Amino acid sequence: MDAAGNRACSPSRAPLCNTLGFLQKNNSLGEEGSLSERQKNLYSCDNSDRDARFRRTETDFSNMFARDLLPAKNGEEATMQFLLELVGILTNYVRKTFDRSTKVLDFHHPHQLLEGMEGFNLELSDQPESLEQILVDCRDTLKYGVRTGHPRFFNQLSTGLDIIGLAGEWLTSTANTNMFTYEIAPVFVLMEQLTLKKMREMIGWPSGEGDGIFSPGGAISNMYSVMIARYKYFPEVKTKGMSAAPRLVLFTSEHVCHLFMFRYFPVFLQSHYSIKKAGAALGFGSENVVLLSTDERGRVIPADLEAKILDVKQKGYHPLFVNATAGSTVYGAFDPINEIADICEKYDMWLHVDGAWGGGLLMSRKHRHKFSGVERANSVTWNPHKMMGVPLQCSAILVREKGILAGCNSMCAGYLFQPDKQYDVSYDTGDKAIQCGRHVDIFKFWLMWKAKGTIGFEQHIDKCLDLSQYLYDKIRNRQGYEMVFQGVPQHTNVCFWYIPPSLRGLEHNSEEYREKLHKVAPKIKAMMMESGTTMVGYQPQGQKVNFFRMVVSNPAALQSDIDFLIDEIERLGHDL
Amino acid sequence: MDAAGNRACSPSRAPLCNTLGFLQKNNSLGEEGSLSERQKNLYSCDNSDRDARFRRTETDFSNMFARDLLPAKNGEEATMQFLLELVGILTNYVRKTFDRSTKVLDFHHPHQLLEGMEGFNLELSDQPESLEQILVDCRDTLKYGVRTGHPRFFNQLSTGLDIIGLAGEWLTSTANTNMFTYEIAPVFVLMEQLTLKKMREMIGWPSGEGDGIFSPGGAISNMYSVMIARYKYFPEVKTKGMSAAPRLVLFTSEHVCHLFMFRYFPVFLQSHYSIKKAGAALGFGSENVVLLSTDERGRVIPADLEAKILDVKQKGYHPLFVNATAGSTVYGAFDPINEIADICEKYDMWLHVDGAWGGGLLMSRKHRHKFSGVERANSVTWNPHKMMGVPLQCSAILVREKGILAGCNSMCAGYLFQPDKQYDVSYDTGDKAIQCGRHVDIFKFWLMWKAKGTIGFEQHIDKCLDLSQYLYDKIRNRQGYEMVFQGVPQHTNVCFWYIPPSLRGLEHNSEEYREKLHKVAPKIKAMMMESGTTMVGYQPQGQKVNFFRMVVSNPAALQSDIDFLIDEIERLGHDL
Repeated sequence: MDAAGNRACSPSRAPLCNTLGFLQKNNSLGEEGSLSERQKNLYSCDNSDRDARFRRTETDFSNMFARDLLPAKNGEEATMQFLLELVGILTNYVRKTFDRSTKVLDFHHPHQLLEGMEGFNLELSDQPESLEQILVDCRDTLKYGVRTGHPRFFNQLSTGLDIIGLAGEWLTSTANTNMFTYEIAPVFVLMEQLTLKKMREMIGWPSGEGDGIFSPGGAISNMYSVMIARYKYFPEVKTKGMSAAPRLVLFTSEHVCHLFMFRYFPVFLQSHYSIKKAGAALGFGSENVVLLSTDERGRVIPADLEAKILDVKQKGYHPLFVNATAGSTVYGAFDPINEIADICEKYDMWLHVDGAWGGGLLMSRKHRHKFSGVERANSVTWNPHKMMGVPLQCSAILVREKGILAGCNSMCAGYLFQPDKQYDVSYDTGDKAIQCGRHVDIFKFWLMWKAKGTIGFEQHIDKCLDLSQYLYDKIRNRQGYEMVFQGVPQHTNVCFWYIPPSLRGLEHNSEEYREKLHKVAPKIKAMMMESGTTMVGYQPQGQKVNFFRMVVSNPAALQSDIDFLIDEIERLGHDL
Repeated sequence: MDAAGNRACSPSRAPLCNTLGFLQKNNSLGEEGSLSERQKNLYSCDNSDRDARFRRTETDFSNMFARDLLPAKNGEEATMQFLLELVGILTNYVRKTFDRSTKVLDFHHPHQLLEGMEGFNLELSDQPESLEQILVDCRDTLKYGVRTGHPRFFNQLSTGLDIIGLAGEWLTSTANTNMFTYEIAPVFVLMEQLTLKKMREMIGWPSGEGDGIFSPGGAISNMYSVMIARYKYFPEVKTKGMSAAPRLVLFTSEHVCHLFMFRYFPVFLQSHYSIKKAGAALGFGSENVVLLSTDERGRVIPADLEAKILDVKQKGYHPLFVNATAGSTVYGAFDPINEIADICEKYDMWLHVDGAWGGGLLMSRKHRHKFSGVERANSVTWNPHKMMGVPLQCSAILVREKGILAGCNSMCAGYLFQPDKQYDVSYDTGDKAIQCGRHVDIFKFWLMWKAKGTIGFEQHIDKCLDLSQYLYDKIRNRQGYEMVFQGVPQHTNVCFWYIPPSLRGLEHNSEEYREKLHKVAPKIKAMMMESGTTMVGYQPQGQKVNFFRMVVSNPAALQSDIDFLIDEIERLGHDL
């Protein structure tokens, strides 16, 4: 190291560079070789001067342990080598994630993984493992996992691996702090504040005024909305409990949790039941969550809402809260917000818009009309970790009225919270949250917004919707397909049945047809997972037997991947 | 690349190695230089062949954007270079975190950061920024943040930067999946299951049987405990709401949220008020959270609990739940679990042990006796992200009775949840959680446990408690110090006043003394933050004016850092 502290060009920097050389070798060997195998390969390099240098300083992790890393004395070099070795594993994974010649997953049953796969032992013990074993464990963890960023992974609302978001998460975990106060997270607290304001502007609240907070997910964001609605109308519940209020009723779409009575067993829908969960948790009772009828596209029918409100009032209960879903989980339906808002105004009720899945469309000039009326909502849930490709977890609850979030959740008069601190404590967020410590979820989102700009998000959204329209156009008149609902999807959800040739001649209303068709999607999905080629979700809905629910949120997906999915469904399902 | 796919020794691998060379240069320049400055330095390297290679492939990020990274066509090289450049920034930060010659923080007021610090602009815009700017933003974000892993950061219960934990988080964010089902997180779901079992074994439940889940933090874990207690005794509340039960009462230590009436303004204590928050959120009402008197060490007095239960019963209310704190936030007090368990048995109440902060002591043969009786609890909160140094967030709620967690939270008959999947769906965790999507919090913890072994955690715990005893021994008879409570602390919390010479002659019970002393800790803390040398928390408690609350959970801290803290308090406070 020279006098100025520069040491980049000195020989003492060789080890790091060599580590990376070593690491490149790892990458090129696929994920199967153990570290020691790889080390053998390393030594077998028959090349010249540069290889001599690689050899000289490659690190043997087999006799190194966590205790040898920082803060251990002289632990710096080992720490750097270990982290770079890990980064080699991770960047290799990133590379393969985007490579269509790799599998989406290498499926194993729970008992297989629990029995231990070729030295991958999940059990914990009293004694430490070597860093070599730890690195092998890291590779195995990735090897037996699911590549959610793979261009052919369509299984969840959250897909994709955004490189800027990933960088943001790596930095967040390196900073390892907590959103509780400005004192320990000054930059992140301000980023959260500015980003929430920007989101409120997109919702259309005047000057982006209002409040909000990032929460650990959409279900908790929705839970916040119910809590603040209750606090707004019945603040005494905070101190006295639910007995201080009349019987309070919440309203949400029936497209949240459906019982489907099939011949042999009841099948339940995996869908977004967060309002029901909130109702149960917060002491309303799930029976006081009234489900609203929907049209054939899965959109709440406003007249049904009004009728049910009147019914509830007639019983002497108090209609408190309506959830309008903007992008339902299965159909991608957008409830008609303006018409619902009219009714909420008429009956003085809280209007929440659950845009967990749909929120991203607010960024698209082409598609944001589906949110028409959202500026009339009292609160909005918006999960950037879904449609916008931000890594999990990243969900915001946005509130039109300032101060009500802290009013609802503060236990210790937040505005007087350590007023003897030297900075403006109005920036401390702890008193607004139901959490105490709170993970930094903002940075990756902020960084992605910086890196893409609003227009980058818009392009991503528009592209995903175009792709889903491509799928819709491709299959709607194709032999062997039937759409679950008619018309261009509002979001990227395309719901369809694949009907194998053996079923095509059967009477569609017959019990036999329904029974057989119900088994098709699960069978195709199981084969997809076994072969590891692609993943897409399925479920029943209401009286409808199992169908595929395709969603596109993955920025890596192309038309050719949609084509691949259809080919794969036909390949696997043709002979069923 | 050769036929076997090896390309480590081929010239085609040079760019990565060169990038790292570039990255090393960055590290050596400190965080102040901009990327372009660093590039100038890079070019000024006057060294030989190797530097020629460094020069040849260094990347100019100023004309590159997020859209040039994967999944862009031919985006692989740019992606690797960008990630490695970022890793250079992060490893540089890691190195400096452990370097005592760097500051803990570089304090700025909110308005200063909002106005923009030397090109660090927090505002978001429509257009994308270059990757060069993104990298600069990353460095600035770290620069203006707080080094929570610094050996002299003592401000929170969560401190330290564990390298294995960090590696675990980097991998977790690269895998970017969700704990909802085995289908998309097979390895992580099994790791969670095995780790929770291991934790239950340490609690002492027979064969580690029971249930549990990782949640986004201690407050939410505690909220789970209240929900499942209610479900156990009054399951009908889930469907019918709180009106289906009598008035339910929760009991917890008064050391949770104290009003301190000072002369000019009320001051509230920053402490762990999560049971009160849960009571308010879940519809019990905060007035139905009864606070229990504590002894001079902050431990709940069992006789007071029994008296208050009788009082509640006499009023016709139903005593439901007792929270015994194992490691209180301010005093580090452990409530007497066995005596509380006797009372809970007598009155048929749910016993929860909040070991969010204390949980780690279960890993220490020397200190686990403080948890004596914990095996009698119905549920336990344990946050590995506090005392055990696991990166945020990592909190578990552990439950003795199997099935009750799903019973309480499932909305869709979890056991029948997509029974047509091809694997054993009992591994799907979604129906147990109040969340839908759930972040992977397990991997970093599992990896740390693998890497350290149980004995590694034990050594860490014992060392931290030894250090706090060192501090206690050092100051308890030292001139100018007064302990807030007498006796060796049960946890690493050491609470004390520093009394500047100007106050030492005053009558300790006088209003003047109390008023002046109340201002000492805030003033010293503000100066600490301005100088950036160290950070430690302070607060009032009950009738006690502001005091320092020192905690040790940082694995990097040494006796010399404790000495430094005391020297610093005296240096800054001597002339107050």
